[in-house]
Amino acid sequence: MARALAPAAPAATGAWREGDPAGHRRFADVGDLPLQLGGVLPQVRLAYETWGTLAADGSNAVLVEHALTGDSHVTGDAGPGHPTAGWWSALVGPGGAVDTDRWFVVAANVVGGCQGSTGPSSPRPGTSRPWGSAFPRITVADQVAAEARLADTLGITRFAAVLGGSMGGMRSLEWAAAQPDRVGAALVLASAAASSADQIGGQSAQITAIVSDPGWRGGDYHDAPDGQGPHTGLGLARRLAHLSYRTAAELDVRFGRDAQFGEDPLDPAAPGRYAVQSYLDHHADKLVRRFDAGSYVALTDAMNTWDVGLGRGGTEAALAAVRTPMVVVAVDSDRLYPVADSRRIVEAAPAVVGGLRVVTSTSGHDGFLLEADQIAPLVTETLRLGAR
Amino acid sequence: MARALAPAAPAATGAWREGDPAGHRRFADVGDLPLQLGGVLPQVRLAYETWGTLAADGSNAVLVEHALTGDSHVTGDAGPGHPTAGWWSALVGPGGAVDTDRWFVVAANVVGGCQGSTGPSSPRPGTSRPWGSAFPRITVADQVAAEARLADTLGITRFAAVLGGSMGGMRSLEWAAAQPDRVGAALVLASAAASSADQIGGQSAQITAIVSDPGWRGGDYHDAPDGQGPHTGLGLARRLAHLSYRTAAELDVRFGRDAQFGEDPLDPAAPGRYAVQSYLDHHADKLVRRFDAGSYVALTDAMNTWDVGLGRGGTEAALAAVRTPMVVVAVDSDRLYPVADSRRIVEAAPAVVGGLRVVTSTSGHDGFLLEADQIAPLVTETLRLGAR
Repeated sequence: MARALAPAAPAATGAWREGDPAGHRRFADVGDLPLQLGGVLPQVRLAYETWGTLAADGSNAVLVEHALTGDSHVTGDAGPGHPTAGWWSALVGPGGAVDTDRWFVVAANVVGGCQGSTGPSSPRPGTSRPWGSAFPRITVADQVAAEARLADTLGITRFAAVLGGSMGGMRSLEWAAAQPDRVGAALVLASAAASSADQIGGQSAQITAIVSDPGWRGGDYHDAPDGQGPHTGLGLARRLAHLSYRTAAELDVRFGRDAQFGEDPLDPAAPGRYAVQSYLDHHADKLVRRFDAGSYVALTDAMNTWDVGLGRGGTEAALAAVRTPMVVVAVDSDRLYPVADSRRIVEAAPAVVGGLRVVTSTSGHDGFLLEADQIAPLVTETLRLGAR
Repeated sequence: MARALAPAAPAATGAWREGDPAGHRRFADVGDLPLQLGGVLPQVRLAYETWGTLAADGSNAVLVEHALTGDSHVTGDAGPGHPTAGWWSALVGPGGAVDTDRWFVVAANVVGGCQGSTGPSSPRPGTSRPWGSAFPRITVADQVAAEARLADTLGITRFAAVLGGSMGGMRSLEWAAAQPDRVGAALVLASAAASSADQIGGQSAQITAIVSDPGWRGGDYHDAPDGQGPHTGLGLARRLAHLSYRTAAELDVRFGRDAQFGEDPLDPAAPGRYAVQSYLDHHADKLVRRFDAGSYVALTDAMNTWDVGLGRGGTEAALAAVRTPMVVVAVDSDRLYPVADSRRIVEAAPAVVGGLRVVTSTSGHDGFLLEADQIAPLVTETLRLGAR
């Protein structure tokens, strides 16, 4: 446990070798990355984890794609004494829907993030400072291009399946569109083929919350002498995002108008909090402690520009051209990526198998993390479609 | 036109008299107001407008209640040369659903607001400074109590009907509950009997956006020497609110992923805006120019504490006790006050007439302002229910 929880130190890069400890973050240098919107990101490093063993014929590799503030820690270290759970432990692990006794599972922290992959808080090559405001704009396609380099490094010529929800679903779809020879099937869960006006509006408001915080300092706060960053702005962005991840009905069942324990929201002079305020404060505080605001802005910007049709003649044309079998799943109560976003993919992409799948959940968008029982058979189906 | 647009100067207070110019803001001093959460707000002044003529028997008075950032200017000055429209001109005016040739229409700016009624930006009695952070917490019940004082001042013993949407619907319901002898019928439109966890969460985030702005200065920015206030925070709050007033589908039809004219959202160095960002910026800028951030916070706080059941044994008990006939209307696509909020009123209040009414709209919450054709017969019905 202590080992799994300790911050991962940069380790030797290179291909995963049988016998390497599973469930620990490793690092791969994937070189200079030409960027979709222009320019080059030099000396890109990806942090990643793997579980299981890559088969001699390379046929059992599976890529799992994390969401906005997720990371490579998809599931716990399967080894004895390392039970630490990951964000998709309910689906990935020995005997799970993605059985790590059979599949070689790879998960990388996304370019632009802050969990060990190159991002705004990383040292800028050739300088003694973090990238900060100089970090270039990156896109979902760039993130997938970096992951393809990682696959090269690991000796993986083809993933049987790429699985992802939310922002991870964008990368999953981009893999299907961009790398038809390297992915057998894709699971696109609670996601969209292109960000909508509503998503851009909400996401841009979150960016505004962060960059309006005086602690943002134009993006160059990482090495500020006082150690302060745009914590208030990031916390506010998280509150907004978290509300979009859940549903009104669920929040009302859980919290209603309850006061937070020991506080009085009706106090005339020193108003206490409602329970839902405390809940959102808690999620804001947690994120601020573990996530970099610059990464939040860079990745949110990448979601704003996300359109699988970029450079492919438009969204519908790109979807029509996808040859990779795809399983496309919406959550019925999702107010961030409404069912209509998944339906659009299903209607435009002949490669979608079995039409629109809808998961039932009271939890809204977060259903893609929580409704493991309903998602497990869809994962199994995707793996079957992609296996050779 | 010029007259109607000019800032209204404080005028003589007192009852409206036939022959007074219609459609101009007047002011009424309604005295010291004991507050629901404790304390007293001294020397309260309400700004208001009226249209039409109060009948000798006083039977034709109608109160129209504005929403959060609305005001008393419900409809244009009916007089020649004064065509300035109001926020409900489509329903209120000569020959309208609320025919000002028949009805004497009253609309007051709410206590806590900034359109001439006492609020955080008003001078604090006994000092030479604005209220600012010293402005006490006010509730929807306080706002209605002040309006009842205004009715006294105007010589109105009973309103045939009280009509309101959104925050105005809260006051409409509070009138029905608090003043059974003074209101004939109530129209409660796109509103709720008590704020939900989801509404409190979203509203609290808006408050956080404002009070986190360094320009807020703890609420005491009104007389800041540099004239600066929490404009950025108020603009952000408005973006969030505006998104909640519309629907994802409508925004996508109107804006999709279009770039704002002359801007390039994909520029790697100087990102331009998407059209939806420009649209939200526009609404933010407009509000910042016309609305006080302190009022926004005070009124949003009043919406957070809103519960018709406060001091009445709970929400359901309060609804069950209402004797005033009510017409309760939801907008089908409303994501701020979902249909379930109206259904709750209908299910708990035997005084609701005709069950749940649902307006069809692609515009979401703002349907209460925009779907005049569907709302007109509901207004007519409410007036018929309340008329003696």
